[in-house]
Amino acid sequence: MSPSRVVEGEQRGWIVPIGGAEEKENDPRILERFVQLCGGSAANIVVIPTASQLADTGPRYEKLFVGLGAGEVGVLDFDMRRDAVEKNRLQRLDQATGIFFTGGNQLRLSTMLGGTPVAQRIRALNARGVHVGGTSAGASILSEHMIAFGKEGLSPTAGSVRLAPGLGLTNRFIIDQHFSQRDRLGRLMAALAYNPYAVGIGLDEDTAAFIRPDNTVEVEGSGAVTVLDAGNLQFSSMADAGEHDTVCMLGMTIHVLIAGATFNMQTRHASAGTLATPKQTA
Amino acid sequence: MSPSRVVEGEQRGWIVPIGGAEEKENDPRILERFVQLCGGSAANIVVIPTASQLADTGPRYEKLFVGLGAGEVGVLDFDMRRDAVEKNRLQRLDQATGIFFTGGNQLRLSTMLGGTPVAQRIRALNARGVHVGGTSAGASILSEHMIAFGKEGLSPTAGSVRLAPGLGLTNRFIIDQHFSQRDRLGRLMAALAYNPYAVGIGLDEDTAAFIRPDNTVEVEGSGAVTVLDAGNLQFSSMADAGEHDTVCMLGMTIHVLIAGATFNMQTRHASAGTLATPKQTA
Repeated sequence: MSPSRVVEGEQRGWIVPIGGAEEKENDPRILERFVQLCGGSAANIVVIPTASQLADTGPRYEKLFVGLGAGEVGVLDFDMRRDAVEKNRLQRLDQATGIFFTGGNQLRLSTMLGGTPVAQRIRALNARGVHVGGTSAGASILSEHMIAFGKEGLSPTAGSVRLAPGLGLTNRFIIDQHFSQRDRLGRLMAALAYNPYAVGIGLDEDTAAFIRPDNTVEVEGSGAVTVLDAGNLQFSSMADAGEHDTVCMLGMTIHVLIAGATFNMQTRHASAGTLATPKQTA
Repeated sequence: MSPSRVVEGEQRGWIVPIGGAEEKENDPRILERFVQLCGGSAANIVVIPTASQLADTGPRYEKLFVGLGAGEVGVLDFDMRRDAVEKNRLQRLDQATGIFFTGGNQLRLSTMLGGTPVAQRIRALNARGVHVGGTSAGASILSEHMIAFGKEGLSPTAGSVRLAPGLGLTNRFIIDQHFSQRDRLGRLMAALAYNPYAVGIGLDEDTAAFIRPDNTVEVEGSGAVTVLDAGNLQFSSMADAGEHDTVCMLGMTIHVLIAGATFNMQTRHASAGTLATPKQTA
């Protein structure tokens, strides 16, 4: 499930994973920015609540996005795999300027949508400029390599993470969510220890990575986006580690980004962005 | 409280911070190695239980070290600052080949011994080849900059750590203990964000950094030693961060070391050491 090829002259849509528990009432800046990105009053957002098993998840986000000024919002749920071949659902997706996956269980998304025409269509739409976001489980599903299960903890152990194929909008990131709140550094490091080609993106709650078409990450929200870059990894003991053994990893780079800072995936360069201009002090 | 100068032709003793909860019964390899380092049957170890307020802490380590083959072990406690000027206590220290600080509260050590002849003498003895170890609070005290208080959590916030002067055997490391178990990455990063010159050493429980006279860290025990090197830090927002704000830190290097791996403070080079020879597989 690789990303669809972007046609020459067009631009991929933004990819917007959110770390879960994003602010919805007082300062919903993440959801607000997503609505603006999708066109504001001209936005047509499709909410996919399939990860959740609560009946009101879809209507809740529908109401939120309408309240934030989105022109049109619809809910598209999938109860079984055969729902994901239906023509009218594919046609509804074709009208979207933005697609949003709610939280829940990412395995409900991968088992229900994986390999279906709906999954293909979402990749194709993203490649043609439609923005795709998701929160919590809906964030994890966006990448090609998805964290399906994992254990809490600071240190990477060989058995601390299990990967599964995700939706594949990007193959450059492995995304984790509720990152600080659920103590997930170890499992994200372990995911990179298996194959250091990817970059790990740990999203705190109420924090989002707005990933531009050029694969630059912009941070939005109140917490941190922890970027783990194993590109220069000098050594990993993963090949010889037992399931419960701590994995030795030497030479990883870590960036703690907050709103204002950026990370560019092509150059692997972190930038302080607007933070580099210090506040005036007396 | 800088480290004492090592006299030409002599060698500094090893510095051995332990992350707390080191195995004492089944596989006490850390304490065993400390005893061997101090001379085995020729060892003369002084246990300083001052961090603890439990009466049996000193005798317990005395018994442990004797059981592991140390030739002579004594307990030297300090109840008030004036104890730390007494001649007979200084003379007892002069006989030691190894000095060991137990766990407890590191502020009891810094408030009781800071600036006293005993503190000076321990630095001088270490510079002349006497090995100095400590566990938990006894590990934190060893460095010049000591973590006095801190909050749990993955992300660094400006208020997540408070530093105080420690015993000053080395000024190259900031040591933290119970590292994975108490979720202390954020506070160690915050300590480095204030002034990136030092290297952060996060010690898991039952894990020790055996720091050679040449400032190479060797790992012993069942967990990880997480090395945070901010030497190439590209940006920190600490100067502008409010107490509860997450601090943006770009370009830190992180090494997860397990037994067999090393880190050299002079060159800031991590090595896989004996781990680089993979196990034979069929």
